[in-house]
Amino acid sequence: MWALAYEGHLGLSRRPLPRPTAGEVLIRVTLAGICRTDIEITRGYGEFSGILGHEFVGVVESAPVPEWVGRRVVGEINVPCGRCATCRAGDGIHCRARTVLGIVGRDGALAQYCALPLANLHPLPDEISDRQAVFVEPLAAALAIAQRHHLRPQDRVAVVGAGKLGLLVARVLVLSGCDLTVVGRHQRGLAELAGLGIQVTQDGGSLPFAAFDVVVDCSGSTSGFALARELVRPRGLLVLKSTVAAGEALNATALAVDEVTVSGSRCGPFAPALRLLARRLVEVEPLVEAVFPIADGLAAFRRAADPGALKVLVEPLGASPVDGEGKWSDGPSG
Amino acid sequence: MWALAYEGHLGLSRRPLPRPTAGEVLIRVTLAGICRTDIEITRGYGEFSGILGHEFVGVVESAPVPEWVGRRVVGEINVPCGRCATCRAGDGIHCRARTVLGIVGRDGALAQYCALPLANLHPLPDEISDRQAVFVEPLAAALAIAQRHHLRPQDRVAVVGAGKLGLLVARVLVLSGCDLTVVGRHQRGLAELAGLGIQVTQDGGSLPFAAFDVVVDCSGSTSGFALARELVRPRGLLVLKSTVAAGEALNATALAVDEVTVSGSRCGPFAPALRLLARRLVEVEPLVEAVFPIADGLAAFRRAADPGALKVLVEPLGASPVDGEGKWSDGPSG
Repeated sequence: MWALAYEGHLGLSRRPLPRPTAGEVLIRVTLAGICRTDIEITRGYGEFSGILGHEFVGVVESAPVPEWVGRRVVGEINVPCGRCATCRAGDGIHCRARTVLGIVGRDGALAQYCALPLANLHPLPDEISDRQAVFVEPLAAALAIAQRHHLRPQDRVAVVGAGKLGLLVARVLVLSGCDLTVVGRHQRGLAELAGLGIQVTQDGGSLPFAAFDVVVDCSGSTSGFALARELVRPRGLLVLKSTVAAGEALNATALAVDEVTVSGSRCGPFAPALRLLARRLVEVEPLVEAVFPIADGLAAFRRAADPGALKVLVEPLGASPVDGEGKWSDGPSG
Repeated sequence: MWALAYEGHLGLSRRPLPRPTAGEVLIRVTLAGICRTDIEITRGYGEFSGILGHEFVGVVESAPVPEWVGRRVVGEINVPCGRCATCRAGDGIHCRARTVLGIVGRDGALAQYCALPLANLHPLPDEISDRQAVFVEPLAAALAIAQRHHLRPQDRVAVVGAGKLGLLVARVLVLSGCDLTVVGRHQRGLAELAGLGIQVTQDGGSLPFAAFDVVVDCSGSTSGFALARELVRPRGLLVLKSTVAAGEALNATALAVDEVTVSGSRCGPFAPALRLLARRLVEVEPLVEAVFPIADGLAAFRRAADPGALKVLVEPLGASPVDGEGKWSDGPSG
């Protein structure tokens, strides 16, 4: 099969099909997304080596339970060991021995096939299209905030960063009825949000400092992180959704004086993400920047890295001819 | 002016215009709603005597601050003393000395005019119609649940009762992405909710007992209250939105053994209700049962008391001729 892998450099290459272990399922990927984390990995983040990609929708090709074969699915990306104290406490996504699809110790979904445990899969209802379904993983990540924190309808909330994740976070937060403001650099995403009745600005300095009950940093930048810290009120909540800024130092004394709660946030629950899509309470199609065949995977990564780019999707079986085993008869074109 | 008042019996009568005290505003009511509480008052609940009605939209007729005159407004219904310890702690809606529009010690809005403190008013944006605005108060009451409690997207939630309030509560709760089931008697409201992707049933016995993280009782009935108690899981949350069932006894031993949290819930925040309406995240027009001129106010109350009736609205200046002071030239017809 063809796959987009990072092994010191990003490349498109032929690989053997994944070999599912006991309890695992082989999935034919129909659509996959490129996430900021994927781009960061190609810049050295996380020391991952292998096939990239953790946002996908696909069809089960083979499974230990035959009735799953042929089902359209999305899949949770953390594969915990299931035996350690963390796993036994029900918190597998923080298992120290876990693998993570396309991020830690496990080949990902920017390929024609991928493998995951059956337990990770969620069947897709017919009313959710492939283009919607590929957003389930990042939408679940946006829901991770409300999974852990009480966001109240009367809260004044700011999202810093209007990139791919910031736009999803804003679309989810607005559903609570909160007083929401989004600060971002790029006019395109902000214009989408303004159309939903969300207050938007490109000028973080115009916002009242220390005035927001909750601030979510989705900026992925040092300056965005600093702004988020300035916006949150005393005793407020600062949620860090962006892995990049997490390397920045927080002034612990100021945090203590202001009694601010800082909370990291990563993966979230798939089931509510599927419900929000099925009920059309979050529209994700406007967030699609472009769809590339996997043959043009390197161009897809370049496009995804453009400042202000929204979600770039990769179609592994794309427009190119495939043979009976789902492999290209000819090499990819780009 | 004409008004619908309860003074031992419900009647339509001529009254002097309200006389706003210092800080108060005179409001010309353009549309008012009949709530279950209004009907209960006419059956002796709460020992209120006076003009009924606390759900309204109107236009400011006179105000201590001239720029408010002519503004379309809705108004919060609790008028706290502002001086007691409860008020000073910022919890005026529980002030012991408070009056409440059309419910406690203060004439209400089922009339051509009403009075409220300026501090209670919220100006209406143009994009919210009168028919939407009259739902702000009950929508705020629905939001009161999330105002106080952390409802998580992954929660399994049941609403018992699909009357006027239950339908609004369901429309708000579904926005969190939660796994929502509504049990109700009347097919009409349930059909509305099913169209939004909400699971509905008329058979509470078909639901798994002790399986819901959160159960909201909006039933207003003893049997609904008993069902709500049975549905909530150990360590779950049982929210009482219905004042009627609050007279029922809870088995305190069973509550202690099951470690269930029981929480009353009454009035909620207006600002997020206005935001949800302006963003069209909650559609309220389908909940309008009928609109009556105030001249037919007694018929409006009869209709509102029909089992399964949705929201009955009253138009104080209705279709009848009015004189220059906003009073009917002739007596009302019904």
